[in-house]
Amino acid sequence: MVNDDLDRPYEGSFRNGEHRYAVRVHFEDTDAGGVVYHASYLRFMERARSDMLRLAGIDQRGALEGGQGVYAVVELAIRYRRPARLDDGLLVVSRVTAIRAASCSIHQRVMRGDDLIADAEVTPAFVGPDGRPKRQPREWVAIFEALRGDQSG
Amino acid sequence: MVNDDLDRPYEGSFRNGEHRYAVRVHFEDTDAGGVVYHASYLRFMERARSDMLRLAGIDQRGALEGGQGVYAVVELAIRYRRPARLDDGLLVVSRVTAIRAASCSIHQRVMRGDDLIADAEVTPAFVGPDGRPKRQPREWVAIFEALRGDQSG
Amino acid sequence: MVNDDLDRPYEGSFRNGEHRYAVRVHFEDTDAGGVVYHASYLRFMERARSDMLRLAGIDQRGALEGGQGVYAVVELAIRYRRPARLDDGLLVVSRVTAIRAASCSIHQRVMRGDDLIADAEVTPAFVGPDGRPKRQPREWVAIFEALRGDQSG
Amino acid sequence: MVNDDLDRPYEGSFRNGEHRYAVRVHFEDTDAGGVVYHASYLRFMERARSDMLRLAGIDQRGALEGGQGVYAVVELAIRYRRPARLDDGLLVVSRVTAIRAASCSIHQRVMRGDDLIADAEVTPAFVGPDGRPKRQPREWVAIFEALRGDQSG
Repeated sequence: MVNDDLDRPYEGSFRNGEHRYAVRVHFEDTDAGGVVYHASYLRFMERARSDMLRLAGIDQRGALEGGQGVYAVVELAIRYRRPARLDDGLLVVSRVTAIRAASCSIHQRVMRGDDLIADAEVTPAFVGPDGRPKRQPREWVAIFEALRGDQSG
Repeated sequence: MVNDDLDRPYEGSFRNGEHRYAVRVHFEDTDAGGVVYHASYLRFMERARSDMLRLAGIDQRGALEGGQGVYAVVELAIRYRRPARLDDGLLVVSRVTAIRAASCSIHQRVMRGDDLIADAEVTPAFVGPDGRPKRQPREWVAIFEALRGDQSG
Repeated sequence: MVNDDLDRPYEGSFRNGEHRYAVRVHFEDTDAGGVVYHASYLRFMERARSDMLRLAGIDQRGALEGGQGVYAVVELAIRYRRPARLDDGLLVVSRVTAIRAASCSIHQRVMRGDDLIADAEVTPAFVGPDGRPKRQPREWVAIFEALRGDQSG
Repeated sequence: MVNDDLDRPYEGSFRNGEHRYAVRVHFEDTDAGGVVYHASYLRFMERARSDMLRLAGIDQRGALEGGQGVYAVVELAIRYRRPARLDDGLLVVSRVTAIRAASCSIHQRVMRGDDLIADAEVTPAFVGPDGRPKRQPREWVAIFEALRGDQSG
């Protein structure tokens, strides 16, 4: 008996309007200090945001290849609370906190069980092929609004 | 109803003695050529090997923190067959092909559906804290033997 | 006639108490959006900070291997102003803005000619082998004070 | 007196038809094993190849943006001889070993003083926007021929 689901990429899940995305720490994510390298958290959080968007129905690759535009991070603030180590199982929890014409803000926290490892506020803007911010597709804004509406607590 | 399994890191699965590990291509993995950057495949393959080992019962972090040793790649040959792109779902299939006193060899292929994207032969050696190759733990050799014995076809 | 200097790693230079570190954008730094990936700037800035410290007389590797401790980023806020592209020549300019018992703050801006590409405030804390912040070595604090004293304008 | 040269990105130099490119090992390049992560060498070698090409007069970015094509690695074999560590000064020495219609081969060795750390044979192919190998620009082939002709010993 074979579980074909395990041949499909993991992409996390939604709960109460928050996206939950588990990450295992591999050697590539660590540094000689024995802990996760600080920039690796940005990679974890980007994976989580991209999978959150795909799961919610936003096709970033289609928009990129169709010449409409692409999200680019314009602002990011992160606090590192505790170190994480090789082999740790982490959970990135993401929630939409603001929606504007050309950008949105997403709060992301990285947990290890009940411990907060890092938390960040990230602002991606939608950018056209000319490199300038432009209005996000209307359907995407509706998706972000729906996600925010689902948030409880 | 909540699926708590989705809060645990994905680690692939075994089938016929081969380890199968699905990977989604994210922005971090691509380059300005529009495709997956060639070194990113080494990261995908390292994730797959580490998760294969953990799933088979080999505790790399314990061995590292206990001062026994750590695997280090000593040889690697890879052929890139087709480009992969943002958002592609890939599958890394890994099989043990040789077991020696201080090292083993693992063949890894990266598939996108039926298409071969890249394939590699990778030789990790077990290395002590002094940086020199040393005998692998006996139980780990037994695990590699068992994996190889399970391979069909 | 051979310039042996070119066989030594580049490490930037000081001017008016600021450290200046030039970086070329390579494929590894870019993503499928055609621009520098947002986390790559953290790598550029870490290279610049580490080389600033070494050039100023701070031996991070010695402190790490001697079991004294290591700097770990505890807080970082960055604004991305303009995209940078493959092959661009960038300049990371770093200045010490605050010195505390166990941490300091460093402002870093990434320039392309006169254009500001990104700027960040980064706070590394000195952390012992147990993962907890500890007092920075006294001589290092003196070095940071001297750097700050050299800043003009 | 100010050395403006230090504000320009380092790009190595040629000696006897070989390109020499010095690299400092930073935290981003290492892993929890305390040594340089194996995929980091591919990044060092890509920086060296790209700077070798630029220095020799090959404009990769122009070809990419002009829609002509881009180099993609199609084959790579590397042996890791000795570990390198944080703060090590390494030297990547690159030489052209084969020139074909659509690809070339480059041998690269990573040295730390007289010690060989790693050596690799890398084959980049020129690839059009459709992802298929195509003839390299004629002037570029002439450049590769000239480099190979300069090799002594």
